[in-house]
Amino acid sequence: MNFQALLAEKACMVDQALDKALPGEETYPDVIHRAMRYSVFAGGKRLRPALALGAAESVGGRAEDALPAAVALEMVHTYSLIHDDLPAMDNDDLRRGRPTSHRVFGEAVAVLAGDALLTHAFEHLATCGAAPEVICRVIGELARAAGTDGMIGGQVVDTASPAAEAATVRYIHTHKTGALIIAAVRMGAVLGGGSPEDVAILTDYGNNLGLAFQIVDDILGEVGDPAKTGKPAGRDRTLAKATYPAVFGLEGSRREAARHLAAARAALAPFGERAAFLGALADFTGERDR
Amino acid sequence: MNFQALLAEKACMVDQALDKALPGEETYPDVIHRAMRYSVFAGGKRLRPALALGAAESVGGRAEDALPAAVALEMVHTYSLIHDDLPAMDNDDLRRGRPTSHRVFGEAVAVLAGDALLTHAFEHLATCGAAPEVICRVIGELARAAGTDGMIGGQVVDTASPAAEAATVRYIHTHKTGALIIAAVRMGAVLGGGSPEDVAILTDYGNNLGLAFQIVDDILGEVGDPAKTGKPAGRDRTLAKATYPAVFGLEGSRREAARHLAAARAALAPFGERAAFLGALADFTGERDR
Repeated sequence: MNFQALLAEKACMVDQALDKALPGEETYPDVIHRAMRYSVFAGGKRLRPALALGAAESVGGRAEDALPAAVALEMVHTYSLIHDDLPAMDNDDLRRGRPTSHRVFGEAVAVLAGDALLTHAFEHLATCGAAPEVICRVIGELARAAGTDGMIGGQVVDTASPAAEAATVRYIHTHKTGALIIAAVRMGAVLGGGSPEDVAILTDYGNNLGLAFQIVDDILGEVGDPAKTGKPAGRDRTLAKATYPAVFGLEGSRREAARHLAAARAALAPFGERAAFLGALADFTGERDR
Repeated sequence: MNFQALLAEKACMVDQALDKALPGEETYPDVIHRAMRYSVFAGGKRLRPALALGAAESVGGRAEDALPAAVALEMVHTYSLIHDDLPAMDNDDLRRGRPTSHRVFGEAVAVLAGDALLTHAFEHLATCGAAPEVICRVIGELARAAGTDGMIGGQVVDTASPAAEAATVRYIHTHKTGALIIAAVRMGAVLGGGSPEDVAILTDYGNNLGLAFQIVDDILGEVGDPAKTGKPAGRDRTLAKATYPAVFGLEGSRREAARHLAAARAALAPFGERAAFLGALADFTGERDR
C-alpha cells in the first residue's frame, strides 16, 4: 500500500468537509472567520481526522461515516494550538513557518477564534445527521478528551511544571496529546458502527500510538531539522520543558517509542486487512521527521 | 408572588447542580478546577439558568427538566466573562467587586479555565440523561448561540468597533447578550417538552427581554451607582464603547427598554399563570439597579 497517497486522500476529504463546515471568509463579522480559516488551513497533517476515518474503516464502516468526528477533532486541535501559542502561554511567533494567529489578527481575535473553533466543533457534531444516541456518545467522548481530565489538564500541568519529572512528563503526554488521539479512534469506531470490543481494541491502539507520537515529537524537538519541524532545535530544553529526552535520554526515548508502536500495531491484529491504514500510520509515526 | 424568593430558590437549585457538575477543587490539576469554581461561584444572578427553568415551567414541564441547560448556560456565560476580562480584551481587574480570574490565577490559567468551562458545558449536556434527540437539539441551540453568529460574533464586533453607530450597537446587543438569553428559554422549552409553537413564543419573549436587559445594562453603566453595578459610572463612554445611551440618549433608551419589556410580557399571554415567573422576571429587568 502507498501510505502517503492514502493519507493525502483522507486529508483531502477532510479539507473539503472543513471548508464546507466553516463559515465563509466574507461572512460578517469577517475577521473572526478569516482567523478561523487561517489556522485551520495552515498545513496541518490531519493526523486526528485520519485516525477517525481509519478507525471507522477498521470496524467495517466507511471513512465517510467518521467525517463529522474528523471535522470536529481538527477544529478542537486547531483551537488548542491557537491558544497554546498566545503570549500568556508558549508565546510563539511562528507555527509551521507562518506567523501565529495572534501575530496576524491580534490577541483578542486569536482568543475568540480559538473559542469559536471549539464551539463550532460541537455544533457540527450536534447537527451532523447521524443517529442521536451516536451523536451524544461522540460529543461526550470529544468533550471529555478535550477537558480538564484530558487535553486542558495536560496543558495546565505543562504550563505550570517546567521541572522535568518522569511522572509529570507521562501525565502531560497522555493528557495533552494522547487524550484527543484516543478520542479520534473511539469516535471514528462509534460512528463506523463498531462494537464495544472494537472500541476497546482501538483505545489500546490509540493509547500506544499517542505516547509514541509525543515521544517522537520530543525527540524531533531535540535533534530534528528546524527547517522541517518549524521549531529551533533544543527549544524545549532551553525552556526547561518536561520532555522525554530530558528524562529518559535520546536512546531511551527511541526505545520507548518503538515499544509503543509495536504494541499499537499488535492491537490491530483482530481487524486484519481493514486496519491496514492504521497499521501503516503507526509505522509512519516512527519514521516521520517533521 | 414573591419574585425575589422564587429567583433565589431557582438560583439555589442551579448552584447545587453546578457544584455537582464541576470537578472538585482538590481534583488534579487543582489550579484549573479552583479557577473554574472561583468564577462560577462569584455571585452571579443566574439569570440565564432562571430563564431556562422558567421556560420549562411555562410549557408545562418541571423546572428540574431544564437543569442540564441551566448548568451548561451558566458555564458558557462564565467562560465568556473570563475571556472578556482578559488584558487583550476589556482588561478588567475587577468583576462584581472581586479580582478577575487572570488577576488571581494568571493569564494562562484564565484562558484555560474559560476553555474548560465551555468544554464542560457540552460534556454536561451530552451526558445528562435526557432523550438523545432532545440533547442534540439543545446542544445545537447552545453552540449556535455561543458561536460566531451569536455571542462570539457580538464580542468580535464590540472589540473591533469603538465607534457608536446605531446598527452596530443593535448587532452587538442582539448577538453578545441576546443570543444566549434566547437560547436559554428555547433550551428550557425543549427540555420541558414544549411544542414548536411554545418555542416560537418563548423566542419572541427572549428576544425582547434580551434587548431590554442590555439597554438597562447600558443605562446603569452610564448613571448607575458604582457601588451596586461594580463598574465606574460612565466607563463605557470613556472607552467610547457602542452603547444605547450614546446613540438614543438616556430618555430614548429608557423608552426603548420599556417598549421591549411590554412586548416580552405580552408574548407570554398564551401560557397564563404557568409563565408568572418569566413575566415577573421581565418586570425585575426593568427595575434592577445592578
